[in-house]
Amino acid sequence: MDFSRYDRVRPLLWNGDSLRVLDQRVLPHRQEYLDCRDHAQVVEAIKTLAVRGAPAIGIAGAYGVVLAARAVSAADGAEALARIATPLQELEHARPTAVNLAWAVRRMAAALRAAGVDWRRVVEAEAVAIQAEDLAANHAMGRMGADCLPTGARVLTHCNTGSLATAGFGTALGVIRAGVAMGRIAEVYASETRPWLQGSRLTVWELLQDGIEATLIVDSASAYLMQTGRLDAVIVGADRICANGDVANKIGTYAHALAAKAHGLKVMVVAPSTTVDMATAQGADIEIEQRSATELTHIAGVEVGARAAKVYNPVFDVTPADCIDFLVTEKGVIERPDRAKMTACFGAVSSP
Amino acid sequence: MDFSRYDRVRPLLWNGDSLRVLDQRVLPHRQEYLDCRDHAQVVEAIKTLAVRGAPAIGIAGAYGVVLAARAVSAADGAEALARIATPLQELEHARPTAVNLAWAVRRMAAALRAAGVDWRRVVEAEAVAIQAEDLAANHAMGRMGADCLPTGARVLTHCNTGSLATAGFGTALGVIRAGVAMGRIAEVYASETRPWLQGSRLTVWELLQDGIEATLIVDSASAYLMQTGRLDAVIVGADRICANGDVANKIGTYAHALAAKAHGLKVMVVAPSTTVDMATAQGADIEIEQRSATELTHIAGVEVGARAAKVYNPVFDVTPADCIDFLVTEKGVIERPDRAKMTACFGAVSSP
Repeated sequence: MDFSRYDRVRPLLWNGDSLRVLDQRVLPHRQEYLDCRDHAQVVEAIKTLAVRGAPAIGIAGAYGVVLAARAVSAADGAEALARIATPLQELEHARPTAVNLAWAVRRMAAALRAAGVDWRRVVEAEAVAIQAEDLAANHAMGRMGADCLPTGARVLTHCNTGSLATAGFGTALGVIRAGVAMGRIAEVYASETRPWLQGSRLTVWELLQDGIEATLIVDSASAYLMQTGRLDAVIVGADRICANGDVANKIGTYAHALAAKAHGLKVMVVAPSTTVDMATAQGADIEIEQRSATELTHIAGVEVGARAAKVYNPVFDVTPADCIDFLVTEKGVIERPDRAKMTACFGAVSSP
Repeated sequence: MDFSRYDRVRPLLWNGDSLRVLDQRVLPHRQEYLDCRDHAQVVEAIKTLAVRGAPAIGIAGAYGVVLAARAVSAADGAEALARIATPLQELEHARPTAVNLAWAVRRMAAALRAAGVDWRRVVEAEAVAIQAEDLAANHAMGRMGADCLPTGARVLTHCNTGSLATAGFGTALGVIRAGVAMGRIAEVYASETRPWLQGSRLTVWELLQDGIEATLIVDSASAYLMQTGRLDAVIVGADRICANGDVANKIGTYAHALAAKAHGLKVMVVAPSTTVDMATAQGADIEIEQRSATELTHIAGVEVGARAAKVYNPVFDVTPADCIDFLVTEKGVIERPDRAKMTACFGAVSSP
């Protein structure tokens, strides 16, 4: 099946000299690109959420390594690598929860280490490959995930896991695109995803670009939708998947999953294998990023909340493996993931 | 125990000629009162959420009846009542879900029907009594509810159920005020309550007026708080309580309750008996108000979401009785409410 009409948004454009980043902070009202010409601008784009989504920040990080490497002189890749130790650290730690960022930076470092005199070409080719592989993985996952859905499924997705969050097509949103294209999905609900409103600002907009109409709800309405028989499945992405199948994803995912389980609905997690972290045993071991209080007290630059409010703003949560019916990666679908199935699919942990 | 220092905000002030309504649409940044001089202005204040909260709109409705009645000439109460049939309908149906509004308008009508030549005095006294009884009920419920909590309890509340939503002190927030005063509560979390942000705009602000510091979270973070051991109980209000103990309350209440049950936490519902509707058998029979799409797509007047987004905006949900550990009214505490316990406490249904 040709998914090309379902793939119109590109968040990351490499033009050979710089990385153009679609600024997700000003979507959907303005479509502006940032031109990142050095690794520090890439770090800033990641930290400030100009680019977000686990696979997308991995790809951005890879191009950040290209920009960092090109700024030094070296006889071979190993020498270049030695000279960019600090930029690599800054890129790897720009955000803590999604494992894709660390994975991409380490893969870039390994490619550089092995490269000879043509290391400038090698490092660029590696980043381009990471991006291309992500897109291919999304198309594969889209088909496999959609095949798990009943015909006429009414699905809920949370946050944004689409083209904007990846190299293109999307993870959970890729399954939704494929499911719509394949006639499996009858209705799509998108939760607005406080505090950053990825659902209302990005997901609804991105789907509209492809002619798919999603219905927006507040995050806390999902349980009511389930109770009144309006939903069949919850489809979400992931920022880190542990060795036991626990999944860190956008805050609110766990609440949706708990409600789905209470109503007998299916929960599907969709992410490339680059999101799997076999070195993290379980969800409780994941560092959950805390962000600024102003994400709650201010919206679109306007102060909405009470002044002097104390705020607790964890932006991810952990959904335990036993809440997950389908874990979809480009390697296949794992039903009811657990440690044994994860190890069988992704191998035991190897030191990076 | 003297709760007077925990009671500083007054949303509804009757001055003998008009009802002054603290305009909750512009809180917490501006404290402005609307001066309602006829029943139509009261209807408008209720419809536009200038005054909100089930008990508060009941009280506002009662004063609306006073204003409507005073605008007509009549020899006795029955004659006055006959002349304000249309205003009474408008007041009773200004919003559909909270039963307190219909209850108050009907009680006012009954008082008027029975009144003689001094009906102008009677109708005003009845509204003043409704307001005074609500405040007394809140003080009683505050004590009884707090007695159900363990010492050092860390509690979550949703929406605003405080002085702003009632005659004063509050229902669920009254239990929290009492619990803090009695040393039972160690920590208070307030969920922001999308779409109207009653939590961040009203609850946090109202508690700060009393020197109680609440921690604001996004609605969908409650399950994560429970998972990480930060909460002991969920305390909420109600807009309608059915004959079987099912509770309609602000959208998101059911999601909090489901998560609480999954983690073994207590769920407490606090509301005056005027919120009990023995004529409604179960939650599925309650009309759930749907509000405008702009409550999601626009925040503080700023367009945040994608244009042309389809929106589903139910502003209440139903928490089934079997999720509720304590139902607190001024008549006492019902543990694990069901139809038999509800009937024993509130009697069988009587036609209004």
